[in-house]
Amino acid sequence: VLDAHAEPWGIMRLPASGFVGAFDGVAAAWRATHPHAQAIACGMVGSAQGWVRAAYVPCPAGVDALAERLAAVPERGLHVVPGLTSAADPPDVMRGEETQIVGALALRPALSAASCVVLPGTHSKWARVVESNVVDFATFMTGELFAVLRDHSLLGRPARDAATTVDTATADDAFARGVRLAFDAAHGVAPLLFSARTAVLAERLDPAASLHYLSGLLVGDELRVGLARYGAPDALVGDPALCERYATALRTVDRPSVPVLDGAAPAGLWRVAECAGLVTDA
Amino acid sequence: VLDAHAEPWGIMRLPASGFVGAFDGVAAAWRATHPHAQAIACGMVGSAQGWVRAAYVPCPAGVDALAERLAAVPERGLHVVPGLTSAADPPDVMRGEETQIVGALALRPALSAASCVVLPGTHSKWARVVESNVVDFATFMTGELFAVLRDHSLLGRPARDAATTVDTATADDAFARGVRLAFDAAHGVAPLLFSARTAVLAERLDPAASLHYLSGLLVGDELRVGLARYGAPDALVGDPALCERYATALRTVDRPSVPVLDGAAPAGLWRVAECAGLVTDA
Repeated sequence: VLDAHAEPWGIMRLPASGFVGAFDGVAAAWRATHPHAQAIACGMVGSAQGWVRAAYVPCPAGVDALAERLAAVPERGLHVVPGLTSAADPPDVMRGEETQIVGALALRPALSAASCVVLPGTHSKWARVVESNVVDFATFMTGELFAVLRDHSLLGRPARDAATTVDTATADDAFARGVRLAFDAAHGVAPLLFSARTAVLAERLDPAASLHYLSGLLVGDELRVGLARYGAPDALVGDPALCERYATALRTVDRPSVPVLDGAAPAGLWRVAECAGLVTDA
Repeated sequence: VLDAHAEPWGIMRLPASGFVGAFDGVAAAWRATHPHAQAIACGMVGSAQGWVRAAYVPCPAGVDALAERLAAVPERGLHVVPGLTSAADPPDVMRGEETQIVGALALRPALSAASCVVLPGTHSKWARVVESNVVDFATFMTGELFAVLRDHSLLGRPARDAATTVDTATADDAFARGVRLAFDAAHGVAPLLFSARTAVLAERLDPAASLHYLSGLLVGDELRVGLARYGAPDALVGDPALCERYATALRTVDRPSVPVLDGAAPAGLWRVAECAGLVTDA
């Protein structure tokens, strides 16, 4: 990686100049200095609401299948990696995470033979990898559930109304309580959600720590189901701070420490580009 | 009931004139014609954010315990029914539903000996009644979860963007599919939520029916946990249209038909008022 440039744009928040403007804002200077360089992207830019519609490749699939089905934005010489679809009914889907998984296998080749890769996020993905192919995966809306409950439900009010902030030890303790409770709840998290309010009313939870408890409930529920279906993760991939939170949650429920891999997206884009013959000596 | 008057106010939406204005808008004409009549209310008006703080009475509790601990708003001669708190850790709470349960027992005395009363709503309650006392209950945030996911998550988008409306048969079928899937999901609803989007992407669910499917998932999850903990409901109490939706869901998972009780709140307020000596010949 010679240079990096980030913008806060996304499919839900584009500049007035649209996809072209967002792309040029990031890449125009690079294209000026490297006029023959190819461009490659992954994620929601390839969705039905994106710049160009890229396929969903059915599992099992690896880097070769992705490289074969790149979509193109000819006016900017941009290639877009397809997503993946699972064999479940209804099928699950991912866009962007397939590239991070390819990158994770490149960064840590020991994951290629057989592993469970977890990508925490708005829509967390648990993926099973066998012989460098993603054979199955599932989505947990943990991050989005947390955000909508925090911002729009009664459960966000104690923290919004709290006069004080919470110290790290109290926040960590509330998160761990939530993780343990949900992890041990055989029926799922639904009958526990209201406790993020009632524990505050009963003065058994600091209002300012109540969102840490709620986050723990949702992550603990994801771990309970994910571990039952996919076994222990072999790698956590994505935003390092969020991955560390999942690593902490795994330790809370007495699971072994899991490596956190950063930089998987650029590594994956490079691998797909290599496979597609986009990387040349020029 | 000689007369009824409804306003759209609630604790989250008061008129500029506050609690006094809301009360007078409903009751001033009645007080003019019946100057010695008592007034009684239940629900969030008795919460910490309400007009007067009413207690939470610990379970087991029945109409006598509620009548003993009425809170008062002296300037309007108003009495406010306390809520209930369960023995769980953290304790669960209700405000308003305790009065509906008292009313349900008055309307249908056969429920008094031993029954399970379910009150669907924003925060659904499942309550176990033994010898006219509420001995245990649990809250499911089914209604609020549905509303925040519909209005603020990715899951609401297919229906918002749908160009067509959905016919009743398609809507009912989507609801039933969601109920069955969640009812049979031993791990809980979390790993199923994303299917409200992916089934649309896979063209296995009409976008305009996707919220009916999501509603089915959440109600099916509530029924799965509620039935496991409390057994089959003996009565559904509250808004008749919503109760009918739960009755349909129960039939979908092959449970017997359950009577729907309407008018439980006024019946319960009357019973509490009788017990507290507020009802006199005058």
